[in-house]
Amino acid sequence: MKIVQIQMPVPAVKEDAVALAENIIDRDVPKDADLVLLPEMFCCPYETVNFPVYAEPEGGDVWKACSEIAEKNGFWFSAGTMPERGADGRIYNTAYVFDRTGRQAAKHRKMHLFDIDIKDGQRFHESETLTAGDQITVFGTEFGKLGLCICYDFRFPELTRLMAIEGAQAILVPAAFNMSTGPMHWELMFRSQAMFNQVFAFGTAPARDPEASYQSWAHSIAVDPWGNVLSQMEETPGVIVIDIDLDDTGDVREQLPLTRHRRTDVYSLVKK
Amino acid sequence: MKIVQIQMPVPAVKEDAVALAENIIDRDVPKDADLVLLPEMFCCPYETVNFPVYAEPEGGDVWKACSEIAEKNGFWFSAGTMPERGADGRIYNTAYVFDRTGRQAAKHRKMHLFDIDIKDGQRFHESETLTAGDQITVFGTEFGKLGLCICYDFRFPELTRLMAIEGAQAILVPAAFNMSTGPMHWELMFRSQAMFNQVFAFGTAPARDPEASYQSWAHSIAVDPWGNVLSQMEETPGVIVIDIDLDDTGDVREQLPLTRHRRTDVYSLVKK
Repeated sequence: MKIVQIQMPVPAVKEDAVALAENIIDRDVPKDADLVLLPEMFCCPYETVNFPVYAEPEGGDVWKACSEIAEKNGFWFSAGTMPERGADGRIYNTAYVFDRTGRQAAKHRKMHLFDIDIKDGQRFHESETLTAGDQITVFGTEFGKLGLCICYDFRFPELTRLMAIEGAQAILVPAAFNMSTGPMHWELMFRSQAMFNQVFAFGTAPARDPEASYQSWAHSIAVDPWGNVLSQMEETPGVIVIDIDLDDTGDVREQLPLTRHRRTDVYSLVKK
Repeated sequence: MKIVQIQMPVPAVKEDAVALAENIIDRDVPKDADLVLLPEMFCCPYETVNFPVYAEPEGGDVWKACSEIAEKNGFWFSAGTMPERGADGRIYNTAYVFDRTGRQAAKHRKMHLFDIDIKDGQRFHESETLTAGDQITVFGTEFGKLGLCICYDFRFPELTRLMAIEGAQAILVPAAFNMSTGPMHWELMFRSQAMFNQVFAFGTAPARDPEASYQSWAHSIAVDPWGNVLSQMEETPGVIVIDIDLDDTGDVREQLPLTRHRRTDVYSLVKK
């Protein structure tokens, strides 16, 4: 399974973002790619005031363009995230995944909103303009099952565990850590979630823009089910191309049977 | 709160282990220590065949000696772990904690037994001679609440999370990783469990004995609630002396309110 992560800058105009993604795909993505990943908010500079302005309903122009990219190239396409205007009029941070025919195969609305206030560091309150989703997202492919969540969602062991219990062998995480939390926790979080749950984990982030109000840590990362880093970028634009075998998770789980050793008679973790 | 971790070798005779611990305490532990920590199976070379042979009931000779060490020195004493012969005749891997008066303040029986089979690496099956406990252990001190679990227990995010929910601000983990899992996961596990749960974490391991059938990774470690390593040893005997303030956890949780952001309406993690 050939996976490609695209760490791209986020242009100010959303049509430009789609065009840029297409250009990178035409130029840098191998023709035999199976799954291509974009960053969180790849088409909307990450600021709370922008989310309602850039938002589109499911099936909107950016959604359509992403569906067409998947179909044209015949790959699975996790189109990062974009602000979605829900049927309820609310704004969500939403990840869409399209299959090789351009059909929407999965949709995840960020369920843990990022509201933090680091002393002498990053302050950000997504909840000023966004509403949280309430669904756990796992979907099937011809390779196996994949989990999907967004950035801050991945800080919650409950969610990752539930995705693994539902059969996810890899977790896709469009994300945008910042210059406070990135150096402290980005790699540690990806490596440890992969280790605890014996899954592959892919964090795909926007490239850093020194002029942006929210500076992305970038460092898009791929981790194997032992928690080893397979590849990690720096802050500049680029792509990771990586070949994995989802069945490796079975081998890891046989040697170190964490799932089987869970004490479900002592504690209970369930989706409500 | 002054915490001392003792990374000691494990003698073949259990009375020697107690004497060694006492010697180290007399020689290397500051008189104003508040809490002293010993390693997993500090008085029983880590082999499944040894556990029934070295086992004593709660209140046995080693237990008594440890209680007296706590009382004599006037510190809290987490006496690593030892094999316990239960009233049911079964053998447990048990951690006792004594308060400053020598009274037993907490008791934890390892609840996840370590049965692994790493390809070209470590094989070990605790369940050949041990029975698993079924209690989650958090206890109060004058400084705040502490959680207690043993080695492989700490690989399960559910347990650590439940200790944190019950109010633990630091987790004590007598442990003995090996030469396969140690280099891969020891530091990663301690740092990430501290990060996810915003607690201090202390892993106290036996020093490495090149002659032993089970070689301890050692590397006793102390981690803060941001996931930063405060101190980590190599493989030889030694002590870590570290001053912490449990209230730092409140500061971390205010800046990055992970506990408050848990989506308990979407997932439920509870003790049964």
